[in-house]
Amino acid sequence: MNEKAISALREVFGERLKTSLEDRICYSYDATMKEFLPDAVAFPLTAEEVRRTVLLANEHRFPVVPRGAGSGFSGGSLPVRGGIVLSTERMDRILSIDTQNLVAVVEPGVVTETLKEEAKKRGLFYPPDPASLKFCTIGGNLAECAGGMCAVKYGVTRDYVLGLEAVLGTGEIVRTGVYTVKGVVGYDLTRMLVGSEGTLGIITKATLRLVPFPESVATLLAFFRASEPGARAVAGMVEARITPCALELMDRTAIDCVRKVVDLPVPDGTGCALLIEVDGPESSVSREADRVEEACRRYGAIEVRRASEASGRETLWTLRRSISQAIRQVNPVKINEDIVVPRSRLVEMFAFLAGLAERKNLKIVNFGHAGDGNIHVNVMISGTDEEERRRADEAVEEVFRKTVELGGTISGEHGVGISKAPYLEMEVGPLGVSVMKRLKKCFDPNGILNPGKIFLEEPAVRA
Amino acid sequence: MNEKAISALREVFGERLKTSLEDRICYSYDATMKEFLPDAVAFPLTAEEVRRTVLLANEHRFPVVPRGAGSGFSGGSLPVRGGIVLSTERMDRILSIDTQNLVAVVEPGVVTETLKEEAKKRGLFYPPDPASLKFCTIGGNLAECAGGMCAVKYGVTRDYVLGLEAVLGTGEIVRTGVYTVKGVVGYDLTRMLVGSEGTLGIITKATLRLVPFPESVATLLAFFRASEPGARAVAGMVEARITPCALELMDRTAIDCVRKVVDLPVPDGTGCALLIEVDGPESSVSREADRVEEACRRYGAIEVRRASEASGRETLWTLRRSISQAIRQVNPVKINEDIVVPRSRLVEMFAFLAGLAERKNLKIVNFGHAGDGNIHVNVMISGTDEEERRRADEAVEEVFRKTVELGGTISGEHGVGISKAPYLEMEVGPLGVSVMKRLKKCFDPNGILNPGKIFLEEPAVRA
Repeated sequence: MNEKAISALREVFGERLKTSLEDRICYSYDATMKEFLPDAVAFPLTAEEVRRTVLLANEHRFPVVPRGAGSGFSGGSLPVRGGIVLSTERMDRILSIDTQNLVAVVEPGVVTETLKEEAKKRGLFYPPDPASLKFCTIGGNLAECAGGMCAVKYGVTRDYVLGLEAVLGTGEIVRTGVYTVKGVVGYDLTRMLVGSEGTLGIITKATLRLVPFPESVATLLAFFRASEPGARAVAGMVEARITPCALELMDRTAIDCVRKVVDLPVPDGTGCALLIEVDGPESSVSREADRVEEACRRYGAIEVRRASEASGRETLWTLRRSISQAIRQVNPVKINEDIVVPRSRLVEMFAFLAGLAERKNLKIVNFGHAGDGNIHVNVMISGTDEEERRRADEAVEEVFRKTVELGGTISGEHGVGISKAPYLEMEVGPLGVSVMKRLKKCFDPNGILNPGKIFLEEPAVRA
Repeated sequence: MNEKAISALREVFGERLKTSLEDRICYSYDATMKEFLPDAVAFPLTAEEVRRTVLLANEHRFPVVPRGAGSGFSGGSLPVRGGIVLSTERMDRILSIDTQNLVAVVEPGVVTETLKEEAKKRGLFYPPDPASLKFCTIGGNLAECAGGMCAVKYGVTRDYVLGLEAVLGTGEIVRTGVYTVKGVVGYDLTRMLVGSEGTLGIITKATLRLVPFPESVATLLAFFRASEPGARAVAGMVEARITPCALELMDRTAIDCVRKVVDLPVPDGTGCALLIEVDGPESSVSREADRVEEACRRYGAIEVRRASEASGRETLWTLRRSISQAIRQVNPVKINEDIVVPRSRLVEMFAFLAGLAERKNLKIVNFGHAGDGNIHVNVMISGTDEEERRRADEAVEEVFRKTVELGGTISGEHGVGISKAPYLEMEVGPLGVSVMKRLKKCFDPNGILNPGKIFLEEPAVRA
């Protein structure tokens, strides 16, 4: 970025524009642990400031990279071609929670947990629950269409968006969607923006749908000898028309990781665990839990633990909640993937993953939202062995090919960003890529919005 | 359309291309009762035939108008500029119902009720239930993003689409979306096509999400003295976190209409009725029904009837189900609108509608999906009195203005088509229109797909 651009930006943001190396380093990485230094960072307070930035970017041709909390796993918020990072962290107001119509209006910088808690205080539920919910933001969730544990019953971020305000790559501020449950007036610009990873527009406000907070919850933790019977139990529950609000699977390697860090009582011979949660009216929850337990035992569970009080439930959650941190402690470098297969193909996928780990001589830790077929495949590497890195990259590509072959998708909730850009065409085909590029061109003709994401080659704007 | 185009089409369709006046008349109207004669009608069997038609349309510049069952209320399937109607009625195969993954794959001509019944046989539920479900088709439902009674709990057609195959205006056959519950790879082309009324692409296959069929249902019919307490009861239920699977309101004029045609026992002094249905696990349904009854009484219900057996439930539904036909018998010409307001504003909207009817000296019959704020406003006219027609048109415009003022939308489930095209800008603003037109251009550069819909002026292709 040239001096002229920087000084024009200074006019927009004043003290809220940062160009020191220290500030720029703070906004140079995300959860992928990759680093790209931006030329500047700014903290907009209004859509108008975002608009002015985008107009300047079109004039001076520099990249504009929107950023929530930088908790993404696909590099969506990384300034891979420099330019300015627009951190939405100061646009963090909940503008309204309408308890009469079950609607919230928020700025993009609101932390997901904050919204969930404010809704809960009013007896309402904002379901999306990405693992990073304590610090990630609604804006980032919208840009990546974040999922989480409860997607198996409640769906993902997309399913809770009624309308948006966003600044397109042209600098136009659009207001999309509605404030009501239904609405079919013109094209669905709302869902075009959701999941577009900041490449079509920068979201500056969101109208979100809330639902009544579930009356009651029961949690179960079931232990199996191996992933296969565990995966069969998952498919069995889906086929038995049980709709849990969480259905998480941890394989042997994941459980081993956690046990290295936390002292957890696990039955002898455990090679897989399922964490299952059911919610709903009090009168039906315990019966649903019975059905879950029955299904687990039918598929060979060694032991099933169960709790419906808060503290007991928390204990059961410990295993699942400790995984990410445990992995980090045991093996700091990992390639974290996010595949989804039809739930009936989970058994096949787990068998494939076990074989792959052996064949490639790699440690692969698998866990995730098995209830919707979404598995986080973590290939553990030393980070210093180049030959190992090559084997790991090959393994990831094999995982993606197998996923697509089984009728699945290479990203359930992390998005494409930079990590999956090389594989986009594998899933959507050359025509899909071409249609998406046309769409990009239509909303960001100069390619100034978050360049280098989703697509491998793109009309390059570089600062 | 010129002879050359017709004979090229004959090569594609053979005997399945119809050009006789009789055949063309059959495909010249829809539920708006407006008529526009196409130049030809064809019955494609494959996406490839649709593609060849679109390529010829680009070459010879004639409109291509996809058509489901012609049950739409906004004119989406009318060939307003002539050209060829592509009736998807022979692409009517259910390709699979996957009971392991709760997914159905269907051709666009499948009748909605057929899919619902086939799913039900397998313990599964395809929720969207537009009033015309006995004859309307999935393709039409997708194109218009149809809603229905159960949208209040289950959402609309959009919420059940996982992926699509469609022929774009360029003749490209795209495959969008996934076969899994989650998926965030690239832009959401699936939802861009849903609700686009055949103006961006012609849907040739759909992958749909199914859910477990609800175990148990209870139906209640509550009578109130007037719309105001009825509307208050609706808002009260929403605020009390009750989530019915149907919450329908009929005002005094609607009830009067039905009673002219069907002999129904209605309590003295009835001026409004609510039909409420709750579903879920057997253990919780009767308690939910208690809560509904309690809420109705709290807001002044004169009487509340209740049933959970099939025959008793059907009796309670008679009033609601008879409305459309009764209106047609009592007053054949009506302007049927489809507004949505935030549920807390229903009281205000009903008061406005009563005042408007008086002020404009018009009979306005109101009923609909009050649970999501969606009211079908029917302005009854003789059809022969021009001055009355003018007053009715003015009234409709006033209804739309009030709707937007209350934070609502001018179409909840019927779409824009031709009937709401003049009001599109009122809701989405000039910028919204401009962005949507750019999107249109991007997917249908020559404007051959269903021209004259959604937008008032458009690069005109006319046969």
